[in-house]
Amino acid sequence: LPKDARTLAWDQLDESIRGEVFFALNNPARKTLLEGVDADSLIAPLAELELNEIAIIAPQLPDNVVKSIEEKLDVREREQLQSVLSYDDSQVGSVIDFDQIALRGDVTVAVALRYLRRLKDLPDHTDKIFIVDHSGKWLGVLRLRTLITAKPDKKLSELMDTDVPTFKPQDPALDAAQAFDRYDLFSAPVVDDNGRLVGRLTVDEMLDLLRKYEEQTQLAEVGVKSEEDIFAPVTRSIKNRSPWLAINLVTALIASQVIGLFEDSIEQLVVLAALMPIVAGMGGNVGNQSITMIVRELSNRALTKSDIAILYSKELKVGLFNGLIWGGVLGLVIILLYQNPPLAVVILGAMTINFLSAAFFGVTIPVIRAKLGRDPALGSSVMITAITDSGGFFIFLGLATIFLL
Amino acid sequence: LPKDARTLAWDQLDESIRGEVFFALNNPARKTLLEGVDADSLIAPLAELELNEIAIIAPQLPDNVVKSIEEKLDVREREQLQSVLSYDDSQVGSVIDFDQIALRGDVTVAVALRYLRRLKDLPDHTDKIFIVDHSGKWLGVLRLRTLITAKPDKKLSELMDTDVPTFKPQDPALDAAQAFDRYDLFSAPVVDDNGRLVGRLTVDEMLDLLRKYEEQTQLAEVGVKSEEDIFAPVTRSIKNRSPWLAINLVTALIASQVIGLFEDSIEQLVVLAALMPIVAGMGGNVGNQSITMIVRELSNRALTKSDIAILYSKELKVGLFNGLIWGGVLGLVIILLYQNPPLAVVILGAMTINFLSAAFFGVTIPVIRAKLGRDPALGSSVMITAITDSGGFFIFLGLATIFLL
Repeated sequence: LPKDARTLAWDQLDESIRGEVFFALNNPARKTLLEGVDADSLIAPLAELELNEIAIIAPQLPDNVVKSIEEKLDVREREQLQSVLSYDDSQVGSVIDFDQIALRGDVTVAVALRYLRRLKDLPDHTDKIFIVDHSGKWLGVLRLRTLITAKPDKKLSELMDTDVPTFKPQDPALDAAQAFDRYDLFSAPVVDDNGRLVGRLTVDEMLDLLRKYEEQTQLAEVGVKSEEDIFAPVTRSIKNRSPWLAINLVTALIASQVIGLFEDSIEQLVVLAALMPIVAGMGGNVGNQSITMIVRELSNRALTKSDIAILYSKELKVGLFNGLIWGGVLGLVIILLYQNPPLAVVILGAMTINFLSAAFFGVTIPVIRAKLGRDPALGSSVMITAITDSGGFFIFLGLATIFLL
Repeated sequence: LPKDARTLAWDQLDESIRGEVFFALNNPARKTLLEGVDADSLIAPLAELELNEIAIIAPQLPDNVVKSIEEKLDVREREQLQSVLSYDDSQVGSVIDFDQIALRGDVTVAVALRYLRRLKDLPDHTDKIFIVDHSGKWLGVLRLRTLITAKPDKKLSELMDTDVPTFKPQDPALDAAQAFDRYDLFSAPVVDDNGRLVGRLTVDEMLDLLRKYEEQTQLAEVGVKSEEDIFAPVTRSIKNRSPWLAINLVTALIASQVIGLFEDSIEQLVVLAALMPIVAGMGGNVGNQSITMIVRELSNRALTKSDIAILYSKELKVGLFNGLIWGGVLGLVIILLYQNPPLAVVILGAMTINFLSAAFFGVTIPVIRAKLGRDPALGSSVMITAITDSGGFFIFLGLATIFLL
């Protein structure tokens, strides 16, 4: 909804669902809403949310609202909220859920089932319960489906699974989210450095996190930040998208200076100006194809040295043959259009060399970024385009200057 | 692993895990393996897999191997396999799992628990059981966590959830996968046109499907098909990547012909050749930013007419101001480099017009593709680049010809 309609809709919401609605909004929508409504009216609805939900939106709320919400919680909840808030957004600790069910390993199935039945309802996303020892140390997990089929006199510790992924509060949340995705987890234990069970992670938060991350990566590749939604004010959008345009202006200016080196050649043979963007642009395409292949491969596994050697050899061969094929096709078109066979040979050579350079850097850039622990997808496209543009202009105009003039 | 190492590794695998390993491989890896090993040796290991796993790999196997596998199944399994095989890859029917647990709604909790305990172990991904009537019609689902906390004398039909997503065998599998992602489903019922429970979908297959789809989309955007892995032969890679390079060659040739129209102008003022790629390239960036924003928005929800009007107005404003800002910056650089204020004014005008065109088509292309029921992400980038390249050259060289010569 546009901004004014948002406040209007908010006013008509039933108090009981306002908390959940506020939580379900995205950051920019919450921001505009906070500007439009009385912050105090948020306290009661938001205090009804789950702790980790409150923690997620707390950084956006005015300090006094967070304080008032904390006052509505009991001591234990307040401590948990403060613990969650003490972690950075990117850490597992910031998305912990404290609604786990933990039972001691020496309890029998019959006792456990009786205990659970007394709870009337189990928390959302409970597919397993956590088994701890007398001191609260995590021992393993017990799936509900195992519990249901188990003999009543068995001890939980005999039935539990110990070979499952666990996470620490200080672990990167994104790693945990990727593990949820890879192993189809529904919930998983969070264990502190002393082995004590702190809480759990649940699939809803984890998949949200993963989705947000993937969206951010996609947007970041064209220099848009995910905070921008389509109703964001024009000024915010301009600011948001500016750094990327600035980078691109710089790389384009460099390419333009490369062309400037050959002004004399272009003056003598002006068709060079018409053909040079083809060599540059096609090189960019070839480079981006290599990068995309390798980024996909890197997202699935780490590449060994021998993998990388195979990759270079393969991509360079593909670049060479593609250069010969498409340079040849373009050469034929040029002979038809301009009846200039030497020009056709120069473009064939320039295309092939630029494709080889595109293949080389198309492997090198993402591999190096991955080695440095950076996201190999991010920025690789801008870099390869800068190289194939400036490089393509230089190679084509250089060869033309040497052989045609 | 490279191809020859694959066969070697395969030979050393224990028979009991060969089926699962074969299933876990990706298509191209299975293909090379099939070329290297005796197909008959696959029959026994593959017959051990789950039905929907067999169904997924069956299309790749030689017909006689599939026949031999079918002979190892019992009558019911054979029927189920044939049913799964009768559906297209893209349909829910092709990924159905028949390991669901279904109970009648008039059964009590105590009876249900006794029955489940006799099964010893529940199938993987059982977070709920399915409730049916005496004729096998689907009535609802009962979560294990509800069953565990329920009073023993309650009937299952009093406890079940009916307001849950269900799928039909002929539904698009991708829609189901997106529902799994959106609603954090772990398993969901598949119901036929007569309301009978056919089987279930499980999170593992669904998230795999979603991941594969997202990967395909990313690769397709640069014209790479997901069948290609990094060890694919060079010839396959060249064929695979060719159509996209062909399209790009055509659009680049068109842009080059646009430049050709202005050869006289370039001959008179050769700096135009150096500056024209900046106008074209920056326009492409602006267009891709708009497209990426809108594709993200379209992936979350359908846009109403008023949304689209707001979008046009916003993106055009952003385009206008960005054009004035970056055209202005570039103009200053030109005055510094070439001491040519009229050229600076022309580039300011060309940049602004090209940015406006980029913003207009950046909204129009994905919106129209979505209206036509096509993936708005796919091909949008190639189209906008073609427009901003040819358009950018035309606008800049056209304005220069009118005002500078």
